Amino acid sequence: MSLFLEVVSVAEAVEAVRRIAPPPGCEDVPLEDALYRVLARDVLADIDIPGFDRSTVDGYAVAAAETTGASEAIPAMLQCRGRIGMGSADAGSIFPGSCRYVPTGGALPAGADAVVMIEHAEQIGDDILVHRPVAPGENVIFCGEDFGAGKVALERGRVLTPREIGVAAAVGADRVSVVKMPRIGIISTGNELVPVVETPGPGEVRDANSYLAGAFVTERGCHPVYFGIVRDDRAVLKRAVSSALDRCDAVLVSGGSSKDERDNTAAVVAELGEVLVHGIALAPGKPTIIGTARGKPVIGLPGHPASAFVVLVAVVDHLLAAMRQTAVSRRTVRARLTQNVPSTRGREDYVRVSLGNGEATPVFGKSGLLNTLVQSEGVVRIPASSEGFEVGEEVEVILW
Amino acid sequence: MSLFLEVVSVAEAVEAVRRIAPPPGCEDVPLEDALYRVLARDVLADIDIPGFDRSTVDGYAVAAAETTGASEAIPAMLQCRGRIGMGSADAGSIFPGSCRYVPTGGALPAGADAVVMIEHAEQIGDDILVHRPVAPGENVIFCGEDFGAGKVALERGRVLTPREIGVAAAVGADRVSVVKMPRIGIISTGNELVPVVETPGPGEVRDANSYLAGAFVTERGCHPVYFGIVRDDRAVLKRAVSSALDRCDAVLVSGGSSKDERDNTAAVVAELGEVLVHGIALAPGKPTIIGTARGKPVIGLPGHPASAFVVLVAVVDHLLAAMRQTAVSRRTVRARLTQNVPSTRGREDYVRVSLGNGEATPVFGKSGLLNTLVQSEGVVRIPASSEGFEVGEEVEVILW
Repeated sequence: MSLFLEVVSVAEAVEAVRRIAPPPGCEDVPLEDALYRVLARDVLADIDIPGFDRSTVDGYAVAAAETTGASEAIPAMLQCRGRIGMGSADAGSIFPGSCRYVPTGGALPAGADAVVMIEHAEQIGDDILVHRPVAPGENVIFCGEDFGAGKVALERGRVLTPREIGVAAAVGADRVSVVKMPRIGIISTGNELVPVVETPGPGEVRDANSYLAGAFVTERGCHPVYFGIVRDDRAVLKRAVSSALDRCDAVLVSGGSSKDERDNTAAVVAELGEVLVHGIALAPGKPTIIGTARGKPVIGLPGHPASAFVVLVAVVDHLLAAMRQTAVSRRTVRARLTQNVPSTRGREDYVRVSLGNGEATPVFGKSGLLNTLVQSEGVVRIPASSEGFEVGEEVEVILW
Repeated sequence: MSLFLEVVSVAEAVEAVRRIAPPPGCEDVPLEDALYRVLARDVLADIDIPGFDRSTVDGYAVAAAETTGASEAIPAMLQCRGRIGMGSADAGSIFPGSCRYVPTGGALPAGADAVVMIEHAEQIGDDILVHRPVAPGENVIFCGEDFGAGKVALERGRVLTPREIGVAAAVGADRVSVVKMPRIGIISTGNELVPVVETPGPGEVRDANSYLAGAFVTERGCHPVYFGIVRDDRAVLKRAVSSALDRCDAVLVSGGSSKDERDNTAAVVAELGEVLVHGIALAPGKPTIIGTARGKPVIGLPGHPASAFVVLVAVVDHLLAAMRQTAVSRRTVRARLTQNVPSTRGREDYVRVSLGNGEATPVFGKSGLLNTLVQSEGVVRIPASSEGFEVGEEVEVILW
């Protein structure tokens, strides 16, 4: 292998991970456990929702035509034919010249097509004075208007946020068919690494990457499986990756991907399968490996957590989204740069920035500093074709 | 009680829920279980991080001064005194005229203060030709430069996202002290409600609110405790709220808050404690109750899920954030309106919008339609002092 990396563009790397993402299975889960899962099948409304013409206010169910021209000065007068109970199976009917009280969410009686809000009516004995006209359909949700029986209420591929969970409940989906949570094996490799519970000696650092990558894949709706720290030993790493492949749908190996004699990850992937990418035109994050083994993706991340995190955001996020059969959910804001941000043409630079008052300030300090991760709110991506952005330019910030 | 609501502003409602938020306890949890928890105590670095001068690249550790003026034409020549192993306890030292190979993450030898990237050097036998000068500190993180021993690495109140989890691991916090997850009791009330597994009969609808509210509080880092559906019966509701107060830190009751004879929630709260707010100048979401009982917040939400969700976002979010002792985490984008959005002065309107191409389009259809929740990406808040926004105006969209 050559000493220098033959790098591919970030776009090529993203294409590669999307191509190798294994097709997910699906499973049924109870709706209350489905938050943030991805729908594997459309959710259909089992019946018309609502199943009846429903009032959206407290007021009087009327035939709208009978309120035409009503005003404070000349109200329409209707005889009130009692109240409709919530959940009542029979809302009765109204005949010309009459109305019925209906609470919010109650069913309209036959003959009614609108509801006069209680604030716009006055009760005088059995009579109701209507002070404002209502249009047909006003303050009413008609039967099936929200979701029609058999129609798609939520499309497959949707992530189930609280709003989708509420809609699924309304249409009777107490269980939903969702994409299986990908199991992502997480391995850290490096003779310098010690577990978090230990105090590093000279030359040693704690394994932050296992935690960082584990939390990242959890946030992205996947299940992390931890395989701990592996020394810089090709045979040992091969056993660890092999074991992770047995139990997981994809494997992330951090460290061991620099292009020198410690380049164990690429060697192991080559032995177990195929290295597709070795080096991305990305800063930080260049020494990244993309490969497959036994039909599963194996990604080699840089050993430094700050670099590894950029690769997680710029590349691995796309892999996980593809494995979940959903789009990458990325929140961005636009902000003006408070400083020039130079960049090297030919590589994509991810510059950490802090945000405030609509301004993005590049975070000072060496990019290898871990503290820059928690002092920044996001990154500005500088395309490979650009030599950077100038102070005052409006840029897109990818929120971490 | 009067027939009409004496409404307070949204700001007053938010102030009220913040005031009654019970102080949270704290607990220690393993770092791997701490994602999205809120730090109850600062996390300090136990030792200097890194604990040694550390290379951020593969290259040659040098005394920067010895590379001054180096160029392709006239390289600096240094004798290479071997390689430093990763995690090696002794990185040795260099003397004038010499350097040592150091891998990314490796410790610098004594006497070195910079690292020449391998790409900028050439090995000729035992000698290294350096083609570019390096500045002191270049490609090096000095001992303690990332986090100083005993210094705050993460402040209390911070939400532990993957980045914070990674930093906590790096500074040795295998357990963290976090705010206890508030337990939020969830009750739905209404004779019209049936469980999600049942098919609603005439006049009936499924209880979507329990799922919606449960998912919302889960998303906001709280633990939902479900108490099911309660009929419109004051004594039964009182028992349910009382039972929820026994087991939870706050209670959300949806339905039963319209200001008519079904106004059970306010009556129950008044019997068990105190009603502080009964009606908010908010559309949708007016029939909202804020009260306390046994020192715990009890919130009455509108029965309609679309209205309840607005109250969750506009008001309850602040309660949950206060209970977790953190700020409301709200993502917003700016977008131009594609249409006029009229509003009534004196109340805060939350208008659902869909987003695309930097434009916000009000979602058509009646606000009582549940499907508007999943057809919108967020809401535009129209302040009580405004009569609305005009087409083309740039507005802030609160992402759901």
